Amino acid sequence: MPHDIRIVTEPDLRNAIGLDLDVIDCIEHGFRQLDGGSVIMPPVLSMAMPDAHAEVDIKTAYVPGLEGFAIKVSPGFFNNPSLGLPSLNGLMVLLSAKTGQVLAIFLDNGYLTDMRTAAAGAVAARHMAPEKVETVGVIGTGLQARLQVIAASKVRSFKKICIWGRDIEKAERLARDLETELSIEPFVMPAPDDVVAQSQLVVTTTPATAPVLGSAALHSGLHITAMGSDQDGKNEIDPAVLAKADRIVCDRISQCEKMGELRSALAAGGVAGLEDPRLTELGAVISGRAAGRSSADQITVCDLTGTGIQDTAIATLAHARVRAGGAGTRIQS
Amino acid sequence: MPHDIRIVTEPDLRNAIGLDLDVIDCIEHGFRQLDGGSVIMPPVLSMAMPDAHAEVDIKTAYVPGLEGFAIKVSPGFFNNPSLGLPSLNGLMVLLSAKTGQVLAIFLDNGYLTDMRTAAAGAVAARHMAPEKVETVGVIGTGLQARLQVIAASKVRSFKKICIWGRDIEKAERLARDLETELSIEPFVMPAPDDVVAQSQLVVTTTPATAPVLGSAALHSGLHITAMGSDQDGKNEIDPAVLAKADRIVCDRISQCEKMGELRSALAAGGVAGLEDPRLTELGAVISGRAAGRSSADQITVCDLTGTGIQDTAIATLAHARVRAGGAGTRIQS
Repeated sequence: MPHDIRIVTEPDLRNAIGLDLDVIDCIEHGFRQLDGGSVIMPPVLSMAMPDAHAEVDIKTAYVPGLEGFAIKVSPGFFNNPSLGLPSLNGLMVLLSAKTGQVLAIFLDNGYLTDMRTAAAGAVAARHMAPEKVETVGVIGTGLQARLQVIAASKVRSFKKICIWGRDIEKAERLARDLETELSIEPFVMPAPDDVVAQSQLVVTTTPATAPVLGSAALHSGLHITAMGSDQDGKNEIDPAVLAKADRIVCDRISQCEKMGELRSALAAGGVAGLEDPRLTELGAVISGRAAGRSSADQITVCDLTGTGIQDTAIATLAHARVRAGGAGTRIQS
Repeated sequence: MPHDIRIVTEPDLRNAIGLDLDVIDCIEHGFRQLDGGSVIMPPVLSMAMPDAHAEVDIKTAYVPGLEGFAIKVSPGFFNNPSLGLPSLNGLMVLLSAKTGQVLAIFLDNGYLTDMRTAAAGAVAARHMAPEKVETVGVIGTGLQARLQVIAASKVRSFKKICIWGRDIEKAERLARDLETELSIEPFVMPAPDDVVAQSQLVVTTTPATAPVLGSAALHSGLHITAMGSDQDGKNEIDPAVLAKADRIVCDRISQCEKMGELRSALAAGGVAGLEDPRLTELGAVISGRAAGRSSADQITVCDLTGTGIQDTAIATLAHARVRAGGAGTRIQS
C-alpha cells in the first residue's frame, strides 16, 4: 500500500537541528531510556573496505513507545579529501515502530551524527565534569573538537580553552573560530599534557590508533571525555589514565570493550575486567542508578563510542521538527 | 559538497526490474563474485522487536570494481496484516564504492528483495536440479511460492506443478494463478510428501519453525531448494533430508549455519559438521570450483538464507536501468 515518505536534505536538517539544550536533553533522555532495559540495541554492523581505504558502520536502536526507530548508515571514505570531499558521510532512515514502513529519510551527510555525538559530550560533561570548570581542554582540531567545546559551553560556564593538535596551524584556526563563536580566550598548547594540566574538563577528539594523552599530568578534579575511538584499533588515551581514574563511564560497555578506550585499557590491564567497580554506563549515571562523580576532586573518564540510541533519539526529534515546519519532499511509494 | 541522489519508487522499480534471465544472470554473477574471495560481506545485522512482533534485518556486501554497494533494510512487522498492510517492507540504499556518497535510494517496499530471492532460486535450479524436470513442486502458497515457480520456469521446461500449503484455499488460488501465468497444469496435493514424490525440483517457501518436509518421499533425481529459513529458529526441512542428501549447497555457509536449514541439521546431527564433504557454497558450484550435481539420480539440497551480495547485485542493475530510463526523482543534498 503506497504511503508518504518524507525526504529531508542536509540544509533543511541544519535549519531544524542545532547544538542547543533541547538536542542535548533529547540525547540525555535517550541514554536514560537505554538504562531502563527495554531498549533494543544490537551490535554495530561494521564493514571495512581496505582496497577503498574505507569503512561503513550501521547503527540502530528500538525504543518501545517511540513512533519510529532510526537506522543510521555512516560511511567513512578516507581517500575523499584528495577528491575535495569530506571523509564522513551518510544518511538516516526513520522507520515506523508500528508498521516498519519508512517514515522519513534524512540525507544529512553525517550532520545529525555530528550533532548527536557532540550532544553526548555535553551529557557526559553535565553529569561527570566538576561543577566548576574554569578551563576546557580539547585534543584534536577537527569538526568534533569545535563542536565538543561548544557543547560543553551549554552545560558549564568556563573562561578559557586549551587546544592541542598535531597540526599547529589547524589548532590556531580552531582557536580563532572558538574565540569568535564563544567569546572566550583560547590557548594553543605545546603538548597534550599541558592541556590536561590546565583543564578541569578535557575532550579527546582524534582518530588516533596509539595514545595521544598520557597520565603524567592527571590531577584531581578532572574529567576526560574520549570520543574519538569508535573502531577496534583506535586508542586515544593511555591505559594508565583509566588505571588511575576513580570512575569510568561508558556510553555502552558492550560496545566500548570492543571499540572504545575500554578495549585498550582492558588489553593492557588498566582495567582489570568488566566487573571493575569503577565501571558503569552513562545511562545509569543519568538515571541515578549508579554513582557518577562523587566528589569535586575525583578523576573521571567517559568513553563514548557512539550508539544507535543517539541516532533514534535525534532522528525522532528531527522528524517532529521537519514535519511541524513542513520541510522536505514527500514521495509516495 | 552537495550531490545528486536518485530516489526511485516501487512502481518505477517494477518497470525497471522483472523476473527475467538478465536478473537471474545478474544474481548468478553475484554469487560467482562471492566465491572469488574479494567480496566483503559482513554478518546480517538482525534486530528482533518482540513487543511489536517485528524484526528488521540489514544486509550489505561490497564488491571491488562495482560502482556502488547496497545496504538493504528489511523490516518484518507481523501484525501488519491486521492493519491491511503487508508484513514485509523495506528499502535499499546504494552508496558509491569510491566516495561513500549516496547514489540512489530504492523505496521498493521489499520488491527488489522479492526479485533477487526468486532469482537465487532460479540460479540454484539451473546448477543443481536434474536437467530433465517434468514436475516442479512448491511447499507454501505465498508470494515466493509463486515467484519461485516462475523463476524455475526460466531455467527448466516442466509440464506440471504440484502445490501443498496449510491453507487449501490459498493453494487453489496459487494453482489458478500459476495456470494462468505459465499455461501449465497445476495440482494441489494433500501432503508435502505427495509433492516430493511427484517432483524432480521442489522449492520450500514457508516461514515454518518445525519441519514441514520430511524424508519419507525422497527419491533419486531430486533437487530441493529451501528458501524459507532466514532466521535462527526457522526450519522447513527435516534434518533427515539433509542427512540423506548427496550434496548440500548453501548460499553462504557462515550464514546458513546460523539461520538456515543447515543450522537445524547441524543441531540434529543430520550434518556432522562444517567439514562434511557434501557441503559447499552456490558460488563455488557456479564457478566450477566445487562439484554440484554429479549425476542425474542424486538427491541435492540448496539452502538459501538470502545474502547481501544479491542486494548489491540487483541494486547495481536497477541503478543502471533507472538511470538509463531517467526514472526517479533527483534530490540534491
